[in-house]
Amino acid sequence: MSHTAELIAVGTELLLGNIANTDGQMLSRELSALGINVYYHTVVGDNPARLRRAVEIARERADIIITTGGLGPTCDDLTKTVLAECFGKKLVYNEEAARRMRAYFKKLHPEDGHMTENNDQQAWLPEGCVPFQNDWGTAPGCGFEAGGIHVIMLPGPPGECGPMFRHRAVPYLKELTEGTIVSRSLRIFGMGEAAVESRLREKMNAMTNPTLAPYAKEGEVELRITAKAEDAAGAAALIAPVEQELGEMFGELVYGVDVASLEEVCLGLLREKGLTMATAESCTGGLIAKRITDLPGSSSVFRGGVVSYWSEVKHGVLGVEQKLLDEFGAVSEPVARAMAEGARRLTGADLAVATTGVAGPDPDERGNPVGLIYVALAREGETLVRTVHAGGPRTRVRQVAASHAFDMVRRYLTGLAL
Amino acid sequence: MSHTAELIAVGTELLLGNIANTDGQMLSRELSALGINVYYHTVVGDNPARLRRAVEIARERADIIITTGGLGPTCDDLTKTVLAECFGKKLVYNEEAARRMRAYFKKLHPEDGHMTENNDQQAWLPEGCVPFQNDWGTAPGCGFEAGGIHVIMLPGPPGECGPMFRHRAVPYLKELTEGTIVSRSLRIFGMGEAAVESRLREKMNAMTNPTLAPYAKEGEVELRITAKAEDAAGAAALIAPVEQELGEMFGELVYGVDVASLEEVCLGLLREKGLTMATAESCTGGLIAKRITDLPGSSSVFRGGVVSYWSEVKHGVLGVEQKLLDEFGAVSEPVARAMAEGARRLTGADLAVATTGVAGPDPDERGNPVGLIYVALAREGETLVRTVHAGGPRTRVRQVAASHAFDMVRRYLTGLAL
Repeated sequence: MSHTAELIAVGTELLLGNIANTDGQMLSRELSALGINVYYHTVVGDNPARLRRAVEIARERADIIITTGGLGPTCDDLTKTVLAECFGKKLVYNEEAARRMRAYFKKLHPEDGHMTENNDQQAWLPEGCVPFQNDWGTAPGCGFEAGGIHVIMLPGPPGECGPMFRHRAVPYLKELTEGTIVSRSLRIFGMGEAAVESRLREKMNAMTNPTLAPYAKEGEVELRITAKAEDAAGAAALIAPVEQELGEMFGELVYGVDVASLEEVCLGLLREKGLTMATAESCTGGLIAKRITDLPGSSSVFRGGVVSYWSEVKHGVLGVEQKLLDEFGAVSEPVARAMAEGARRLTGADLAVATTGVAGPDPDERGNPVGLIYVALAREGETLVRTVHAGGPRTRVRQVAASHAFDMVRRYLTGLAL
Repeated sequence: MSHTAELIAVGTELLLGNIANTDGQMLSRELSALGINVYYHTVVGDNPARLRRAVEIARERADIIITTGGLGPTCDDLTKTVLAECFGKKLVYNEEAARRMRAYFKKLHPEDGHMTENNDQQAWLPEGCVPFQNDWGTAPGCGFEAGGIHVIMLPGPPGECGPMFRHRAVPYLKELTEGTIVSRSLRIFGMGEAAVESRLREKMNAMTNPTLAPYAKEGEVELRITAKAEDAAGAAALIAPVEQELGEMFGELVYGVDVASLEEVCLGLLREKGLTMATAESCTGGLIAKRITDLPGSSSVFRGGVVSYWSEVKHGVLGVEQKLLDEFGAVSEPVARAMAEGARRLTGADLAVATTGVAGPDPDERGNPVGLIYVALAREGETLVRTVHAGGPRTRVRQVAASHAFDMVRRYLTGLAL
């Protein structure tokens, strides 16, 4: 039997336009991968009567209702109270949820270590529900069933909503869906979304099981293959030939399957080979270092780096010769090369990457255009530089530049042409 | 008379999670500035029956319905057809709209210069409507009134929807609205969300105009005061006493009003005083440098920094004495101090901040707990260190540590105790 979910996002900040409903986007994507239809999203403010009305409408047209937001002390646990009421459930004090929240709170504030009364309120949950422990924040979520409708409540902050859905709600939902849904995700770097999509369009339209869907994010494309079958092995068998075909189609541009990011791939490869890396960043301003150190365990391979925003730092710390800076300017191939070599020398790392370019919004004083970036990779005996023209606003230019640095590391460590 | 608008976004790509409903966010913000209430957003796919149902619900609870998307040839002008039908309007061929589309198309494709039949279909608009010429794309929008309800249709692509709203729909709506809404936002760093909220709860509940709402994000709280009055001056007069009261209540913890971030405040202060800064980052791994260089214009005040992830880099590049590292360990007050001083010496900056701590997920080899961070600020003649206990996952610990570094800079530059 096929299920239909409706998303209800609760929060006046959404109706004031302070934030976009990115939870709705994330959940839509995840639910579609699970084979669950989504026909409507509703956004409603922190208002009990209007939320009640939205729930009454949703229960007529969906058998799964997923709410985001309106949990936690600042909104009086509005969502929990209204949903419990709509479905005739009492709120009962969940000792286990309270204990976990106290432990989380104590970890957060070791010096005082006791929760405020507000926080304790969050331990009241609808009777008979499955509590969803929140390891990414305080407000717990939950799932319950009433009259054939499944209700799932998730916290609003995207950093909590995402992991809570994947680690708490998905196992709960899996029991409702017949058969198994399996997804595999190929990550592509080095070809634009429109180009990838136009190569795949006919194929995508012709496919029903598995399905194939592209998702674009700053300079990358993720291709998700989703199959539904009686069991995992059956789904895997449906996916395999498509994965192979895509692998042949995009070749070296596929940097990983079921991986989170280019930096995660680099971390794995560096570890495997027992190598270390370093950074010298100008236009990315610390972003490359930030991205690799976002990953737990990065300290085994990442020694450190220099953010040489000013030319004085390129010269004085990284040892870039003044005459290169004078002759070619800071945004140049020779300076990128010297920066990478300087970072390698300075830190003793096996590999060093460097970036210098124009992140925008304005061209540099030598007239180099926004989006022009030189990305260098230095290793024993050789340094290579890639020239990149990245489009879009400052944030995107910086992300794309950082991704190119990781792509060079990935290609070098897997023996591909740089 | 106060108006209520409901937003209906049309597009299967929204329900598949390919894109977020950023039109909804933009329109909410614009409408709230116009003093028009928004109580609900609905997202629906390219499906006539479901769109009809959404419109039927919306007309019961709003007197202005604004649709985005579902115009143009790729969706058979779904929105226009359904809305015209719902409100009993015929579609009539609008010669003026057709002429303008032809002119736009000719500008875009000077070589062939005639529209496809698909495009010509777009010139059919509901009878008696005000056509909204689209100078940012092809599909025209429109506004009409039927039975006391105003319907506005806008194209979906954000690059068209934004200007179409501001230049076409706003003049149409202005005739309907009375009063203005103004918001002011106080940013607080240094007190948790629950603590801020428990101090304000009674006050918030008692307020109706202006209203007061807290929004939490990693280690920070934003307090938004929103007032409605006949004009902007009237709204400002309602806000002023509340803003003053909150300012007295939270004092030095308020780092700015109507600002985007701590780093933005630091950038402004550094510029104003003609000072420069540098960074030495261990546990934040480049995040402080990344956050300040996210801002255009940061190159005038940010010289650069060192990401000293390994002790070898702390010693070899930043000049932290080996005996400090041996005696106290990398995560210690003396090392934080020496790192900041090293970064300042190395870059010649007026101020340098440093972080060393345990970002997690595991304690360090000396048994320092996750979340323990030393944040240092070095300036001419003095270095101060703040000890921080940050809770939550790795990402949050790092963000909070970086925010403390900016908070120290902010406090130093405004003459507050560190």
